[in-house]
Amino acid sequence: MSDRLVLHEDPISGNCYKIRLTAALVGVAIERRAYDITKGETRTPEFLAEVNANGRIPVLQVGDRFLPESNAACVYLAEGLPFIPENRFARADMLRWMFFEQYNHEPNVATLRFWLTVVGEGALDAVQTAAIPGKRAGGEAALALMDRELAARDWLVGEGPTLADLMLYPYTHVAGEAGFDLSGYPAVERWLSRIETLPGYVAMKG
Amino acid sequence: MSDRLVLHEDPISGNCYKIRLTAALVGVAIERRAYDITKGETRTPEFLAEVNANGRIPVLQVGDRFLPESNAACVYLAEGLPFIPENRFARADMLRWMFFEQYNHEPNVATLRFWLTVVGEGALDAVQTAAIPGKRAGGEAALALMDRELAARDWLVGEGPTLADLMLYPYTHVAGEAGFDLSGYPAVERWLSRIETLPGYVAMKG
Repeated sequence: MSDRLVLHEDPISGNCYKIRLTAALVGVAIERRAYDITKGETRTPEFLAEVNANGRIPVLQVGDRFLPESNAACVYLAEGLPFIPENRFARADMLRWMFFEQYNHEPNVATLRFWLTVVGEGALDAVQTAAIPGKRAGGEAALALMDRELAARDWLVGEGPTLADLMLYPYTHVAGEAGFDLSGYPAVERWLSRIETLPGYVAMKG
Repeated sequence: MSDRLVLHEDPISGNCYKIRLTAALVGVAIERRAYDITKGETRTPEFLAEVNANGRIPVLQVGDRFLPESNAACVYLAEGLPFIPENRFARADMLRWMFFEQYNHEPNVATLRFWLTVVGEGALDAVQTAAIPGKRAGGEAALALMDRELAARDWLVGEGPTLADLMLYPYTHVAGEAGFDLSGYPAVERWLSRIETLPGYVAMKG
């Protein structure tokens, strides 16, 4: 891999951590450039023009090209490696869990965590406050689905860890900060430990 | 492709149409089995046990295996074909738009369409009604981002149509039903026409 890799990130974001975790596990060095999303640093004219017109992080810079969306960036990093299965159905099934993560897990678990730990419950507006019960139920449903799946198998797809596991790990392992009690999901807890013993694993903070 | 392919779908769903459109464009025959989501037909014990524990459609059945998530199913169908670029960065960039679709476009444009055309604005609950302005703004932002991109190029990724285009087409072309005025996005309108002239194109209804 000859292109220079730069992760444009906010260190508090689990979506950014996905890319640092994947890079560490596949053994690729990436530079890091930090922005503070709570100060609007990803909404400046410069950021919108040069890094991501969507105003969001993470963005993986590959040479002079910019790749938004954490899950897409991790596919780029892991191409040709065992974290992406070779079998056609298994590869699609991996993507199935990655889309599940962005649709059913992240908007519930990650958003609640951001609201409760960064914004603060007292500072939420009325629409956000009204949305909490739905996001709580959606997050519990996502965790329950993972727990049922992981009660029967060690990894979400096939016999070893794939990007499906690596993309669902970051917000699941801090779901407690979003008010979820993981002790109700014992298969998920065992799976979290399994990921934390992978060679090259790095923690979210640090 | 020797496995029998069955699409478990609700014909009103744009997510299900993604799979029919992709199958038609790649020239693969799929059987169709219809469920009515407004009657809870994807929440029955049989559906949850046999088709998708997440209670959602579409699900692409491949032989005796079941693949939820529309975008993952379309990757399965299009593997090895030009709708998935061979270049590593372009392939990741295609996935970037597909994750954008599920995170920034579908939850805004498709949800508003469902609320306004299926549920009915008068039948929405207070939380849904309060969420409308945010979803309206999110949908406009997604369409504006696409319009800026498509003002400079014919297709979202590279020089020809990819799954990025095919996954964003279904809910964009019916965004009017969700209350969006596409005449404000002329590059998007030209792109919709471009997709509708692809050989093998099938319409959503019918």
